[in-house]
Amino acid sequence: MDEPVLLTGAGGRVGQAILRDLAGEFDWRLLDREPLPSERIPADVDESDVFVADVTDDDKLDEAFDGVGAVIHLAGDPRPEAPWDSVLRNNIDGTQTVYEAAVDAGVQKVAFASSNHAVGAYETDERTPEMYRTDDEYRLDGTELPRPSNLYGVSKAAGETLGRYYHDEYELSVVCVRIGNLTRGHPPWDYERGQAMWLSYRDCAHLFERCLLADYDYEIVYGISDNDRKYYSLERAREVLGYEPADNSADFADQQPTSSS
Amino acid sequence: MDEPVLLTGAGGRVGQAILRDLAGEFDWRLLDREPLPSERIPADVDESDVFVADVTDDDKLDEAFDGVGAVIHLAGDPRPEAPWDSVLRNNIDGTQTVYEAAVDAGVQKVAFASSNHAVGAYETDERTPEMYRTDDEYRLDGTELPRPSNLYGVSKAAGETLGRYYHDEYELSVVCVRIGNLTRGHPPWDYERGQAMWLSYRDCAHLFERCLLADYDYEIVYGISDNDRKYYSLERAREVLGYEPADNSADFADQQPTSSS
Repeated sequence: MDEPVLLTGAGGRVGQAILRDLAGEFDWRLLDREPLPSERIPADVDESDVFVADVTDDDKLDEAFDGVGAVIHLAGDPRPEAPWDSVLRNNIDGTQTVYEAAVDAGVQKVAFASSNHAVGAYETDERTPEMYRTDDEYRLDGTELPRPSNLYGVSKAAGETLGRYYHDEYELSVVCVRIGNLTRGHPPWDYERGQAMWLSYRDCAHLFERCLLADYDYEIVYGISDNDRKYYSLERAREVLGYEPADNSADFADQQPTSSS
Repeated sequence: MDEPVLLTGAGGRVGQAILRDLAGEFDWRLLDREPLPSERIPADVDESDVFVADVTDDDKLDEAFDGVGAVIHLAGDPRPEAPWDSVLRNNIDGTQTVYEAAVDAGVQKVAFASSNHAVGAYETDERTPEMYRTDDEYRLDGTELPRPSNLYGVSKAAGETLGRYYHDEYELSVVCVRIGNLTRGHPPWDYERGQAMWLSYRDCAHLFERCLLADYDYEIVYGISDNDRKYYSLERAREVLGYEPADNSADFADQQPTSSS
């Protein structure tokens, strides 16, 4: 990717995981709704490549998108419990605005941060907690219809469908990454679900690097580490993107602090 | 269905097709954004059961939803070419408002007017026009991911996903009907696609009657007549709803007016 890569929501958790490992790998443009504190901006990113704008405000996006080759679109309300008005505006309308700006600017690729919450309601009372366990065979692979566990998940599914439309209509390459549970350093302790959908920081950065470098049309992939516990298939991410996760939540089992109770 | 049935968008084409055949079958409440002309209100519907309200205006919906057993939700911008701002507000936000009002009012069933445009981009250059023809085996059956042909179609897919969420979260029965090409009297002439997805007025009314009377959890079905040409499967509608279409666009082939050219 020779052209600049625009990262929306650069100051958030996923954005920071990406920049931590890939700061020197791409010519970054950073966009966030709030001014980024200096510690969240890699040293080699020019001040002129840092933009403060709301993704729903299309007038402000032109300059940030000018000459960009790829977009990693993370901006949005990240709260699973976010109210409808917020996800309607920030996540659904904001994502449509980003796709339009991408098409107008001649962008080739968009990697969209979708979420496990787009399919969270597959975790029914009948299937859990068994589906979180190593010996369970249940898998979601990205071909299933959305089944959101909250309105945030509805908004992420809508972002995926927008991507499908912008791919079909404008030949934009779009990959939707249903991000699992991103935590730094180690997987969540005492939380089977979180261990099953754990995504390490370095696997997150590697996965989005592959989204920038691989060739694809329209894809929905799951973004988790290579956990022994899992109910998301990594097959598409491996095959289409060349994703090779390095981490596994099972490797941390004996590092779990002993409970004091 | 002993309780009243609320019909949103009652003055539109689908609403009128339903009321033409089912006026006496249910205790109707009619809602439309515009005051309904008297010829669009069945004779036995009381003035007090006719509501003028925009579905995005939740404050105005309480009275219309009070005591209702089922909702047929048709209201929205019906134009395939509608701009994003309109479908975002009228179709996506409006449908969420209707689901919320339905849950608040203790409604049991919602039949949602989705559209063939939610999956219109499956009609690729490679598949058409063959897929519109009688001897072609290609079928969409409602398990496929949305693939909208326009932003209107994106909004209808979002309405389907909202229905999935409101079903999973609140046990509301929801059926999404991907309505084909509804025309009165006869199928479109000289338009293979329109003949393949033709829905006659009486089949439309019968299908929504089945949506009110059948038992289901969450369903996506195709709303077309039993056309010889078809690329939508009627299997789910037949099995789950007991839909038995009476019309077939092929029966009108010899009634087509001769072209003067």
